[in-house]
Amino acid sequence: MKIARFEHEGAIAFGVLDRAEGAGAIEVVELAGDPMVAGYETTGRRLPLAGVRLLAPVIPRSKIVCVGKNYEEHVEEMRGVTGPGGPAPEEPLLFLKPNTAVIGPGDEIVRPAVSERVEHEGELAVVIGSVAKGVAPERVSEVVYGFTCANDVTARDLQIADGQWARAKGFDTFCPLGPVIETEFDATDAVVETRVNGEVRQRASTAALIHSIERIVAHASEAFTLLPGDVILTGTPAGVGPLRRGDTVEVEVSGIGILRNRVV
Amino acid sequence: MKIARFEHEGAIAFGVLDRAEGAGAIEVVELAGDPMVAGYETTGRRLPLAGVRLLAPVIPRSKIVCVGKNYEEHVEEMRGVTGPGGPAPEEPLLFLKPNTAVIGPGDEIVRPAVSERVEHEGELAVVIGSVAKGVAPERVSEVVYGFTCANDVTARDLQIADGQWARAKGFDTFCPLGPVIETEFDATDAVVETRVNGEVRQRASTAALIHSIERIVAHASEAFTLLPGDVILTGTPAGVGPLRRGDTVEVEVSGIGILRNRVV
Repeated sequence: MKIARFEHEGAIAFGVLDRAEGAGAIEVVELAGDPMVAGYETTGRRLPLAGVRLLAPVIPRSKIVCVGKNYEEHVEEMRGVTGPGGPAPEEPLLFLKPNTAVIGPGDEIVRPAVSERVEHEGELAVVIGSVAKGVAPERVSEVVYGFTCANDVTARDLQIADGQWARAKGFDTFCPLGPVIETEFDATDAVVETRVNGEVRQRASTAALIHSIERIVAHASEAFTLLPGDVILTGTPAGVGPLRRGDTVEVEVSGIGILRNRVV
Repeated sequence: MKIARFEHEGAIAFGVLDRAEGAGAIEVVELAGDPMVAGYETTGRRLPLAGVRLLAPVIPRSKIVCVGKNYEEHVEEMRGVTGPGGPAPEEPLLFLKPNTAVIGPGDEIVRPAVSERVEHEGELAVVIGSVAKGVAPERVSEVVYGFTCANDVTARDLQIADGQWARAKGFDTFCPLGPVIETEFDATDAVVETRVNGEVRQRASTAALIHSIERIVAHASEAFTLLPGDVILTGTPAGVGPLRRGDTVEVEVSGIGILRNRVV
């Protein structure tokens, strides 16, 4: 099921994507509440997808947990750039982005004046569905609500200068999420692709993740209590590169959709 | 004014500390709502401070922003421990703790099984009162609601192993806040003292901060939109050291109060 959060005529609601009768256009079936909390009761209203404005499908009230260096080829390209050499970390390397960085599909990524080098990092993101602490890897699926696309936008120059990544990755607009949450998703071999102005820059299968989704969520929940609506970014493949004013960046995860944002 | 959040007979409320008539014991004057949002209307009820359980005076809905290496002597003691040498950073070095780490006065700090070395870092904390983005240093006082004590509890071994500090400083219970928020506070020369089992371990005046409160809040608000209830930890003085099972750690900031927690 594809869950959307959308704005229509000034009101914000959640909905489920569905094809109109007779293989027609995609529509949004409006829900009575936040499905993560209130279930899937509908209001009975159906709207053409093209007629609504999609928003970030979730705004984390607590945390966006991110994993660094989780694809071998990306570890390779970052060697000497954001840290010393050495192999990929034995455990998932965690860092945090603030919820104030979240924007939705179609929103603009704002390059801050203090950075000369803003880069894209397309990723698969996990949306947590229930309170989770010390979850064993084999029980992770029980606490996952669904999956979405994310762009871990990074001010690379400030990441290098600060050493700690919180500021460089935490600027307002630096965490596009969406376009929808897919609740039935096979994360073992999905393709994560990032395009800038239509040109493919990053492309890998989640089969190449060094630490699996199960391992990442278990590791994060060992340290932090995860809350419903928390989002975990699973790491970016090789091919990170600059975003310039006027660029359009797309993160597509097969089976979920395309998260598209313009850079200003 | 000293603002408390407290639990009494199963209900949670905010209150203002006040001395009972005739220079009697301290009482809590119950407020009708969250004073940061609803102002200072009282319910008319007064309770003895000793008869209520104080809670963390604020639970950030968005961010806990922290500043690393903000007292010269602490920069000195950390040299070679959590990073290469070199002088203190020219700009405030920011990192984030998740709101799930917050506990209140009297709550227990839980040492995680995965760390061998958990340490105290007593600090002065700023509580943000209004939405703030790109605030100039000279206007910072307009967006500050008040000040409280904080303990930036840190799993030092994991901080060193991870390189990124989010996990080592983000464990559940690793951000004690309280006991109250002081809304009228002079942060230019307050004493921040940390005691373990009564013995002074850290002590410095905020006059020794490398980056002032104004500079820190301005710098953080340049990157992140600060929201009401966001908390900014301003850095710890020299003298960080281990916390062992059964220890009682106290962070006292002159003019605010004592934040006391047991370690389990």
